[in-house]
Amino acid sequence: MINSHSWQTLYINVNLATMSDGGNSYGEMNQAALAVSQGKIAWLGLMSELPDYDHSTIKVVDGEGKWLTPGLIDCHTHLVYGGSRANEFEMRLQGKSYQEIAAAGGGIVSTVTATRAASEETLFNAALPRLQALHEQGVTTVEIKSGYGLDTKNEVKMLKVAEQLAQALPVTVKKTFLGAHALPTEYKDKPQDYIDLVCNEMMPVVVEHKLADSVDVFCEGVGFNLAQTEQVFSAAKKHGLSVKVHAEQLSNLGATELAATYNALSSDHIEFLDEAGVKAMKKSGMTAVLLPGAFYFLRETQLPPMDLLRKYDVPMALATDANPGTSPLHNIQLMLNMGCTLFRLTPSEALAGVTCHGAKALGLSANKGQLAVGFDADIALWSISQPAELCYQFGVNPLVSLMKNGEQVI
Amino acid sequence: MINSHSWQTLYINVNLATMSDGGNSYGEMNQAALAVSQGKIAWLGLMSELPDYDHSTIKVVDGEGKWLTPGLIDCHTHLVYGGSRANEFEMRLQGKSYQEIAAAGGGIVSTVTATRAASEETLFNAALPRLQALHEQGVTTVEIKSGYGLDTKNEVKMLKVAEQLAQALPVTVKKTFLGAHALPTEYKDKPQDYIDLVCNEMMPVVVEHKLADSVDVFCEGVGFNLAQTEQVFSAAKKHGLSVKVHAEQLSNLGATELAATYNALSSDHIEFLDEAGVKAMKKSGMTAVLLPGAFYFLRETQLPPMDLLRKYDVPMALATDANPGTSPLHNIQLMLNMGCTLFRLTPSEALAGVTCHGAKALGLSANKGQLAVGFDADIALWSISQPAELCYQFGVNPLVSLMKNGEQVI
Ligand SMILES: [Zn+2]
Ligand SMILES: [Zn+2]
Repeated sequence: MINSHSWQTLYINVNLATMSDGGNSYGEMNQAALAVSQGKIAWLGLMSELPDYDHSTIKVVDGEGKWLTPGLIDCHTHLVYGGSRANEFEMRLQGKSYQEIAAAGGGIVSTVTATRAASEETLFNAALPRLQALHEQGVTTVEIKSGYGLDTKNEVKMLKVAEQLAQALPVTVKKTFLGAHALPTEYKDKPQDYIDLVCNEMMPVVVEHKLADSVDVFCEGVGFNLAQTEQVFSAAKKHGLSVKVHAEQLSNLGATELAATYNALSSDHIEFLDEAGVKAMKKSGMTAVLLPGAFYFLRETQLPPMDLLRKYDVPMALATDANPGTSPLHNIQLMLNMGCTLFRLTPSEALAGVTCHGAKALGLSANKGQLAVGFDADIALWSISQPAELCYQFGVNPLVSLMKNGEQVI
Repeated sequence: MINSHSWQTLYINVNLATMSDGGNSYGEMNQAALAVSQGKIAWLGLMSELPDYDHSTIKVVDGEGKWLTPGLIDCHTHLVYGGSRANEFEMRLQGKSYQEIAAAGGGIVSTVTATRAASEETLFNAALPRLQALHEQGVTTVEIKSGYGLDTKNEVKMLKVAEQLAQALPVTVKKTFLGAHALPTEYKDKPQDYIDLVCNEMMPVVVEHKLADSVDVFCEGVGFNLAQTEQVFSAAKKHGLSVKVHAEQLSNLGATELAATYNALSSDHIEFLDEAGVKAMKKSGMTAVLLPGAFYFLRETQLPPMDLLRKYDVPMALATDANPGTSPLHNIQLMLNMGCTLFRLTPSEALAGVTCHGAKALGLSANKGQLAVGFDADIALWSISQPAELCYQFGVNPLVSLMKNGEQVI
């Protein structure tokens, strides 16, 4: 017995891409309807099965054959940062040497310097249009990392800004503490001292103020090594935080396998991951987060191990990696196209990457990323003739409206 | 003696990227002002040189340190088309064979079929959001080609739609007759008969109704050969139309050198162009039109001969090539990023590609593509700290306002 009395909004004459099939298909339902109650999806089914409802109390949206998908999820971003790296971008294209660019203050150091110098308000004002742009593309959930403060005060400042962004826009923000992003210049040649600071000073403060949901590490030749990564993971576990890792982007150091032993949510980038690593991910239930924007911007040539990920059925999420150094691309729809064009994802895999699998990468798969009864009513309505158009065409934004927790927000 | 009495709009406290230096630099002027009168740029100079003006009659826009550039020019598009190729895109990514895709009606044939079946109104309604999207990115001039009708009636229909788009939005539209885009199935094995039709039936009708500014040919192994291309160029010249060419995208057939002998406006794509071809372009004053969207979407690896183009100082324009088959990317700001990232253009070269050099590719360089006295007041105001940001960052649209012929349209 369906209780339509509690419904607040009802979409009729829509096609659903429910994304309840783990990326194997869109979980399509045609000529369907979907009802929302108390911020949750209360009912969905065929138009022919739609029960009676009270036209006077329910807001009815006639989709006229358009498509509903879950609100999009961008599960890996560095949206909060100070300054711009346009100057460095330009110098590199002008053929300036590494030394000249470094002398002009290029590289991650310049972002750290600018982020430290910026007030919370300045950082907020810079990040808001980035999140607003994602939101207008259909994003209702985003992850934001710290990692340009690299000292306690400034890491905390970044995470507070992420929290303020969640207040400013109808977007769920998951916050990740990435103190182990890079070695700050004041700890040059003392990486162990810095990792101790991350674990023993920064992390307790972050935990005390509930500023992070997860802890991330950049494990790479140019980042931190495996032992340092494990130290951070171990500290995170002690504080009850989940972990994730930037891993195997430029080489295979084994961080993904390590992360698996800590039941990490995800391993991100993973262009150089091998079969053992993929198996470890599968065994521990991790999600692979694919970041084609960085692959494109850095003109990489090594593709992630797509066939192995498919062979072992590892969920593949897809995200912007929006950041000033390696992916200054604040557009999730572009990632749908790049995921297909560059990584050869099928459109249904790509769409799963920004819905059900994006949710899984954030530990939200029980409530978000699918059109299913009981799930959060984060819902996008698209003017498209088939779901693959979201991946194929880019430039014309087909978003018609966006619902967040049952409220129309666009 | 400056006559400020005639001014209608005055931008103060702006930085100018005048683009009057042929792409060698932005032609920067800082702490400047720019005055508009009768749809033209009437004055520009330093704030310190700004003459007295009547505050009560002039609309003053305080740019607060933001940047003005010429309105952007997308000099190569196929914006008018019927149908969608999302299905074919998806089948290819699903690993379907060429035969299966062809059996499902894939390829340019499907676009021709859909375009022929569509009414003028349907084509207009499909193309309008594409042009609207470009316009909202700062585009004030666009070129639109025919080439999916491939018979007289439908080529005319496409060009009429292009004309209607020019009425619907404040964007200058240059129309190009591309009857020689592909061989329609009804002329299979009879390419010469089809080229005769293009030259002897279609072109006269197009000319009679003033439906095209230029004539284009797709010269390629999969398109038309050199002799057929020359026949079309020759007919165009007889009708007083300028010519351009899709050339050397997949192989070097010599179409660029041929086009040079016809004083063509541009040769477009040119990944496989050699030094002789580049020299010929220089000698005849042609513009190279670079199309990184198609390069990206087709995952090509052969870069255009950038060093040769620079060595011989051939102007390089940059455009979307927006089309359903090889570049379904309706975004000129993305092309600025892709031009730099994929083709290694410097940001000032890229910006010249969508301003002064885009204008040159359309024969409009006397009036458009620069901030200079007497030029059309097509002007974009950007919230950026330096011009390179237009190329470096993508996703947050920094357009603040857009002027077309002296009127604020965004
Ligand atoms: Zn990252
Ligand atoms: Zn083209």
